[in-house]
Formats: sequence, structure tokens, C-alpha cells
Amino acid sequence: MVEHSGLNIMCLNKYSLASSSSSSSSSNAEKKLLSKLKVSLTKKYPQKNAETLSAQYGTNLLLIGVSVMLALAQHGPAVKKEHLLTFITALMLVQLVWMLCYMTRRERERGPVPERDAHASTSWVRGGLTMLALLSLIMDAFRIGYFVGYHSCISAVLGVYPIVHALHTISQVHFLWFHIKDVIKKYETFERFGVIHAVFTNLLLWCNGVMSEAEHFLNNHRRRLTALGYANLSTGVYVCPHCNCTTSVCSMFSTSLYYLYPFNIEYHIFVSAMLLVMWKNIGRTLNLHSNRKRPSTRSPGLLLGPMLGLLALASSVTVLVVYLIQVENSQCVHAAVSMFYCYGVVMLSCMCVASGAGLLVYRLEAWPMDTGLNPARALDAELLLGSSLGSWLMSWCSVVAVAAAGRSSPSFRWTCLAYSLLLVLEKCVQNLFIVESLYRRRRDPDDALATEVFCVTPTYDGIMNRGYETQEKRCVTLEGETPENRAAFSRKQTDVTLPVGNQLNVTPGRKRQILKNITIFLFMCNISLWILPAFGCRPQYDSGLEQETFGYSVWTTVLNLAIPMNLFYRMHSVASLFEVFRKV
Amino acid sequence: MVEHSGLNIMCLNKYSLASSSSSSSSSNAEKKLLSKLKVSLTKKYPQKNAETLSAQYGTNLLLIGVSVMLALAQHGPAVKKEHLLTFITALMLVQLVWMLCYMTRRERERGPVPERDAHASTSWVRGGLTMLALLSLIMDAFRIGYFVGYHSCISAVLGVYPIVHALHTISQVHFLWFHIKDVIKKYETFERFGVIHAVFTNLLLWCNGVMSEAEHFLNNHRRRLTALGYANLSTGVYVCPHCNCTTSVCSMFSTSLYYLYPFNIEYHIFVSAMLLVMWKNIGRTLNLHSNRKRPSTRSPGLLLGPMLGLLALASSVTVLVVYLIQVENSQCVHAAVSMFYCYGVVMLSCMCVASGAGLLVYRLEAWPMDTGLNPARALDAELLLGSSLGSWLMSWCSVVAVAAAGRSSPSFRWTCLAYSLLLVLEKCVQNLFIVESLYRRRRDPDDALATEVFCVTPTYDGIMNRGYETQEKRCVTLEGETPENRAAFSRKQTDVTLPVGNQLNVTPGRKRQILKNITIFLFMCNISLWILPAFGCRPQYDSGLEQETFGYSVWTTVLNLAIPMNLFYRMHSVASLFEVFRKV
Repeated sequence: MVEHSGLNIMCLNKYSLASSSSSSSSSNAEKKLLSKLKVSLTKKYPQKNAETLSAQYGTNLLLIGVSVMLALAQHGPAVKKEHLLTFITALMLVQLVWMLCYMTRRERERGPVPERDAHASTSWVRGGLTMLALLSLIMDAFRIGYFVGYHSCISAVLGVYPIVHALHTISQVHFLWFHIKDVIKKYETFERFGVIHAVFTNLLLWCNGVMSEAEHFLNNHRRRLTALGYANLSTGVYVCPHCNCTTSVCSMFSTSLYYLYPFNIEYHIFVSAMLLVMWKNIGRTLNLHSNRKRPSTRSPGLLLGPMLGLLALASSVTVLVVYLIQVENSQCVHAAVSMFYCYGVVMLSCMCVASGAGLLVYRLEAWPMDTGLNPARALDAELLLGSSLGSWLMSWCSVVAVAAAGRSSPSFRWTCLAYSLLLVLEKCVQNLFIVESLYRRRRDPDDALATEVFCVTPTYDGIMNRGYETQEKRCVTLEGETPENRAAFSRKQTDVTLPVGNQLNVTPGRKRQILKNITIFLFMCNISLWILPAFGCRPQYDSGLEQETFGYSVWTTVLNLAIPMNLFYRMHSVASLFEVFRKV
Repeated sequence: MVEHSGLNIMCLNKYSLASSSSSSSSSNAEKKLLSKLKVSLTKKYPQKNAETLSAQYGTNLLLIGVSVMLALAQHGPAVKKEHLLTFITALMLVQLVWMLCYMTRRERERGPVPERDAHASTSWVRGGLTMLALLSLIMDAFRIGYFVGYHSCISAVLGVYPIVHALHTISQVHFLWFHIKDVIKKYETFERFGVIHAVFTNLLLWCNGVMSEAEHFLNNHRRRLTALGYANLSTGVYVCPHCNCTTSVCSMFSTSLYYLYPFNIEYHIFVSAMLLVMWKNIGRTLNLHSNRKRPSTRSPGLLLGPMLGLLALASSVTVLVVYLIQVENSQCVHAAVSMFYCYGVVMLSCMCVASGAGLLVYRLEAWPMDTGLNPARALDAELLLGSSLGSWLMSWCSVVAVAAAGRSSPSFRWTCLAYSLLLVLEKCVQNLFIVESLYRRRRDPDDALATEVFCVTPTYDGIMNRGYETQEKRCVTLEGETPENRAAFSRKQTDVTLPVGNQLNVTPGRKRQILKNITIFLFMCNISLWILPAFGCRPQYDSGLEQETFGYSVWTTVLNLAIPMNLFYRMHSVASLFEVFRKV
């Protein structure tokens, strides 16, 4: 629907142009062709092409960054961290300029209120992002402090980068609050490039964060292995600056940096997902009916879900602390890994049961699904499935490793097998639950009955599609009416089906209560499962089981790919579950 | 649009069920809940969920296979080739059973003609696939011959696999010819799983082919390096069977196998793309207007494009032969790589110019784009963009390597730089050209004029979207009319705009001729660029330039990822360009 263009206008020109190109002289015809070309090129560019072109531009930006990172990972003499940071800084500056242009232009066109996509983001998500952005700013402050301490012997880029990043963060948060819902309809091609540039700049910042974090973790891991006596691995190439720190807190800056990385990483990936929705919305015609925002409803009876969720959270933090202490001691590594897997099995089983129960509740409800166009929702579902891939691959590798392991392998291999299979199952069921929740039409107390009555339209299997479509249209017609009419209609209907209407109000309330409890429980479980790997509890590195079958390099590559994806999955499902919680 | 379901029917049941659950006793209520659940579960499953669930099932199948392959790549003692082949054989058998079920069921329901998606595949594509399938069958025959020769000392799985694969290939080709266009509307959930199983079985077969091919290539490469004296790399672990061959042609079988691999690989990836379209079509309601197939038109004046294309093809084959001879000789490796890059620069420049010219021709045309729903086309465009990623990453890595290279590095680094940048540019421009061609509405000689007249509807920038939509609807209305009406309408219009109509027939013909020539040229260039890497001309392994910056393992990983994607890209653009050729 976004490919409308200036072509219609061009059609008008065509007649005048075509009528003048009939002369038989070929040189004359070529001149005409050129002038015609000039006219065509000044017209608006077809939006399908602009979409393809801007997607290609963005992808290549990211790939340039990734290839520099790959070269960096080799610790060769030619490519240095400074090069990467310079590139990223340049991208951030370009994005800053674009955002400024966009915002000033919007300010100037104060006249008509621009169209906005109500589904693009909620204030809760933006609030969460603002918090993450604040933590990123603290990180930038630490980086600046580190630079000030060592300024005499490290590159100036390391000082410029955090300053630009801080500026970028501040103006991006401002942009998110006031413009992320905009549906751009002017200068579409230009804005498309601007938005996609922003998307891929944030993705590159995410990649950079993930790489730095993984490097730090691997260095720690290697240091530990060396201390334990497995010294055949070369230690990480962490280059300390060649001068003394002029302030006294340099080491504090560099160590506390790594506790803030997880937040910075999540901030960037979330922003890029939101900007991608904005990109998809460019030139879109909104369906005004489906675009209205429904108010959230309050519900009592939230006890079991939050209680169990808090229990899960508390036990996770305990496991994290115990694990981090035990794993430093060479005798306790196996015990620590074993404990983690046992905890994981219990946790994942509970989550499977909860999601399964949620799905069962949905099966009890006779509510049609909402199939309206909604890029934000479609992206949510795709990202959930896409980011599950990483940890599914990891789980299946673990399964293969357990199957291939001999008798001499550690005792925790059966718990590891159960954990891996449950992880696959849990993500499958949870994805189903979230996707179904997102695609459910919301029950509004006032129009529930009216729509319900309309659903009675009998449809047959063969013409189901068409029947469904007309039914949907009819419901829409009704919902578009004035409240008085609708109320009158409901009353008229309740005269006929009064006993049913009375009972319907009982069961859905209970169902909603169950669903809310399930959602809040899953919400907290997902936070727990995010905290563990984000703060260094990664038994997959320490168990050594998979490394035996896959070798160090393959297994590390799999983990470096899977763990960031898994972290993103957990955070993303937290956000989606919150959305579900407000919707149910 | 596919989420219609049995829910409408469930609405009917709801009243009777709800009315019986009002009793206050909770145990009684629970019993009711259970019975209600039973009723709900026997109903049709919502299609959005079936989609998610089947996608998850398929992805996990693939990931299991990939994790076994990763373990295999390590050449450990526990995981053997036989395990992988057993798994794949089992998957193929399941697919065979499903296809048989599906076909017999379709045979039995002879009554109404099932709905078919006219865009799902052309007979040309199917013909091409049949040829690839024939070559795959020859490969199976070779494999069986190899097994017969060594049957006393190798696992029986190596004999069963090619037999099952041959059966699978034959019945799959039959399925493709007669059922790939079907729009499934019955047993949707079951068929969804069947189709996705087929998709991912083929993807896994593709992965297996790619892995075997890459292993073979790397073994050859290592052998050559060892022969040249760079003997510090461990040679590949190619295990010869521990007995003598009972027939005399065993070595012939195993060597000729590798010349057939490229065809087998393309066969499987193409089939999985086609099956994915079938999966997306399940439960879809076809738009009968846009679903009609337009006849292809003949056009004279095809000379320059085919001539230049044949020249490109001939030069590619020459380069291939010279390269393969030169690279065996240690003194000539640099000369061979240098020659390849020079050839590549010329080739890619020509392709860039051709695609750019095609885009310019489109800019001259005032033709709106076709935005109708068409999963096959959308998938084509996405696959083109997606499969470009691999070689873009490779190109940017080369650029980084050139930038990082010192003065001592080989002289071909500047041609390498030009080649890499041109490769990025060429794919960008070609993608744009193909996507625009696919989304263009076809000019039909008879209704061109009529629609043209309708395009004159003036639209303003602000309400462009809506204007475009109504204009489209009007065009549709017109096209849906009987030919007599339409002809009358055209005549009526030509009375008014006769001089324009006469001239319009001249220029579009010439434009079409240019486009056809460009398309056929690009078609042959893409075949050329497929042949080179498919048959072993991979200078990225031999140049050593990138290996210096990225290290052996990272660079090999990048290549093992990028080269199969690039091969698929070339083949896929060949198929798309053929489609474009018939459409223009």
C-alpha cells in the first residue's frame, strides 16, 4: 500500500511529452527522450523502490561495521578499536543531523496534526527505554572519566565517542517520546533513508555492545581457566593503556562499565525495533477504526501470579550469586553447573505449565482473532520467533553433545538434556501464548455482547473465509456506530438472550483473572532468565560438555551468536508480556 | 487473512455451554469447564496459531540437523555421517508418506476443481527443476554404485540414503508439477505441518549438500596448500573405506559426484522456496481478478542482449578453465587471482550499466505499480535481498582487508577493492531492477489505453494514498468488464485522444525491446557468475589477502556462509530475470 507515487501526476505529463516525440529523426527523438527523462527524474520516486533501496543502504552500513568488527576480533595490527569507533561516531552524527532536521521541520508545520500509529509503542515501553537510556548515559560518563584519566596516551576518539553517544542518546529519547508514532507522508524517500539509517546505527551500536561484552566475558573465562591450570589457551589480548591514570578511580570506571553493558545493549536493540516499525509505517494509510487506542482495565485477584513470580525472581538472584561464587573455585564448577541446570528444569517446567494453561484458557474462549494490518504487532511476533532461533540451536547442540558423550562425562548430563529439551518446549509454548494474546481481539465490556451476537452468523467449512470476512465487516459496522445506537442494540438483543448474557459476565472475568496471573508470572520468569546470563551466569561455557563434541571454536561461535539473541528474546518477551497484561 | 477458523462455529456452542456453567458449586463448575474444553479442543485450531506452531516445528527440525552437522564438522569419534544421514532419511520418509496421503486424498475428491494460485510457479521453473532433479537422480545412481563397490565395509545407511533420496526426488517432482499451485482449504492444520515439513526437509538436504561440497572444496584446497609447501595446516580428514572396491569404477563414482553437487544443491533450495509459497497460500482467499494469468508476448529485435550475454558466458567458461589450471601451479596463483578480478570488474561494470539503464527506462514510463497480495512475488523479493547479504559481507570484508593491507601485499589488491565495491553496487542495482520489474503492472496492448485514460485522475500530494486507491479500484472495475464494453470504452476515449494513442504504441514497443535485451543480458551474466564459484573458481580462498587480516578460521567461516548464499542468489536472480523477461 506504500507504493503510491508521483506516477499519477506523470501520467498527465505523458501525453504532452509523447505527442512531441513522434518525429522520425532519431537524434531529435533522443533529445526528447533526455528531456523526458529529466522531467521523470524530478518527480517523486516510487515508494517500493525507495523501500528496497533504503533497506539495502542500511544493511550495507551494518555489514561494513560487522566486517570491521570481524577484523578487530583477530587483534591484528592494522585494524584498531579506534577505526570502528570513528565509523560509529560518524553514523551517530549523521543520525543526529537527520533527527534535528526532522524535528525542526515538524515544529514548523504546526498546522494539521500529523497521523499517528496508536500501536507503535506504549508509554510504558518508552518509559522503560528512558530508564535504559539513563543507565547508558551513566556508562558514557564512566567512559569519559576513563578517557580523562588516561588522556595522555589513548586516542582522542575514545573521548569523542562517549560525548557523541551521550548527545545521541538524549536526542534519540526525545525523538522516541514525541515522534516515534508519526506516520510520515511528506518527503517520504528522504525520511525513509533517515529512519533506516537510525535503525541500522542502533543495530550497529548493539553489535558493538555485544562484541565488547562477549570479549570481556571470554577474557574473564580465559583468565579463570589459566588460573585453574588449563593454561594451554592463550590469554585474551586486553591492552592496558601505556601510562598511569591521572585520576584515582580509573579501574573503578573500567570495571563498573561491564555491569552497565547489558542495559546499554537492550536499549539499542529496542530502539532499532521501534524505529523499524516507524520505517514500515512510512506512507501507510491508517485504518482509523482499528487505530483507536483502548483504555486499559483494572482487575482484582492478582495474587498467585505475582507471588510465584517474585519467588522465581528471588531464587534466580540467589542462584546467580551462588553460581558466581562457586565457579571461581575449580572444585565447585561441576556442582555450580549442576545446580544451575536443576534450577532451570524447575523454572522452565513451571513456565511451560503456565503458558500451556494460558493457551487452554484461550481454547475455551470463542473469540475471533484480529487480523487487521498492524506492523508493530507483526514485527513483535516475527522478532519473537526469530530471536528464539539462537537458543534453539544452542539447546539442540547440547542434546547432540549429551547423546555423543561417553560414560566418563560429568553426571549433570541428564539434567542438561532435560534442561535443553525444556528450553525448546518452553520457547515454543510461550511464543504461541504471546502471539495468540497479541492477535486476540480485546473484550470490551460494553461491546462484547453486541459483537458476540453477531458471531452467531453460521458459516460453513467450505466458504469459511468469505463468511469470516463479512462477519468481521458487520462487527465493524456496529462498532463504528454511536454508543446510543449500540446500547439500544445490545438491549434489544439481551431481551432475547438474557440468561446467557448474565452468565457470560461471570466466566470471562475469571478467565481474565487467570490470564493476568499467568502473564505476570511469565513476565517475572522472563526477567529472571534475562538476569542470569546478562550478569555472567553462563554454564554453557563452564560445563565443558559441549566443547568436547564441538570443539572450542565452533562452540564459542555458537554461544557468541546464541546468547545475545537469547538475551534479546527474554527482554522482548518481557515487553510483549507487559503488552499482553494490559490487553487481557 | 489466513486466520479464519472454526471459532465462528464455536460461538454457537458457547451459548449452550455457558448456560450450563452457572451453578455455584465449584467442583461442578470444573467438570463443566473440562467438558467445555473437550468440545473446544475438537474444533478447528485457529490458523494463526497453526502457522506459528508449524513454523516452530520446521525450524527445530532444521536446527537439529544443523547441530548434528556442526558436531560432524569437528570429526569427533561420537558423531558420524551415518547419524546425519539416518535423520535425513527419516525426514524424507515422513515427507513421502505425507505427499502420498495428500495426493491420494486429492485424487479421491475429484469433484470441484481446487483453487490454484496462478503466480505460484511457471512451467518454465518447473521444467528447470525437473532437469535439476534428473541430475540429482544421476548423483543418487553414482552413490548407489559407490555403495555397491564398498558394501562390505561401509554402513548400510549409505546404501539406503540414495535409494530413499531417489524415491523422494521422483515423487517430489510429481508433486511439484501437479500440486504446487494448490490453495489448501481442508485439513489446514494438518497440511500446514506437512508442507512445512517438506520445506525444512529440503532446506536440510540443501545444508547437507552445501556442507559436503564445502568440505570437499576445503580438502582440495588443503591438499594443494600442502603440495605447495604450506604444510602447517592439518590435512582434511577424508576417510577412505577400509576395503577394496569390488567394481572397477568406484573412484570414478566418487569424483564425478562432486561435479553434480551444485545442481543438487540448487534443486533443493528452489523446491523449498516453492513449497514455502504453498505454505503461505494455505487458507488464503484468492483475489480472482489479480489471479488470472496473462499470456506471454513475442517480441522481435532481440539481438544485442543475447549476443553480449553469450560473449559473457563464453569468457566466463574460459576464465574458469584458465583459473583452474593456473591455480594448481604455485607460481601462477597470483596471476590467476589477478585475472579473475580484472574479468570480474569488467563483467560487473557491464551489469551495473545494464541494470541502471533498465531502471532509467522504468523512470520514463508512467506506469503505476501493482500492489496486490502475491506471496510468491513478495518471497522472491525478500529472498533476493536476503541472499545478497552473504556476498555483501564478503565484499566489505575484502574492502577492510585491502584497507588494512600493508605495502608488501600483492599487487592485485586495488583490483580486488574495485571488484568488491562493484559487487556491492551491482547487487544493489540489480535487486532494484528485478524488484521494480516484478512489481510493475504488465502492459497489455488492449487495456493499456483504457487504464492510461483512468490514470489521468489528478491526485494531490496530501491525499495521494486515498487517491491512488480509488484510481486502482476504478481501473479494476474497468478491467473486470466484458471485452466488448472495454473496447467500446477505448474507442470512445480514442475519439478524444487519437493522436496520443497512435504514438503511445511506438515508444512502449521500443522500451520493451530495450528491457528485453537488458534482461536477457543480465540473465546470462548471472548464469556465468553462478558457474564460476559452483565449479571451483573461488579466488577468495586462494588470494590470501583477507586471510591475513581476518585469520584462517574467521575468513573460512565467512566464506562458507557467503558462497552458498551467493550461489543461491545467482540462481534465484536467473529465475527472477526469466520471469521478468516473460512479463516485460
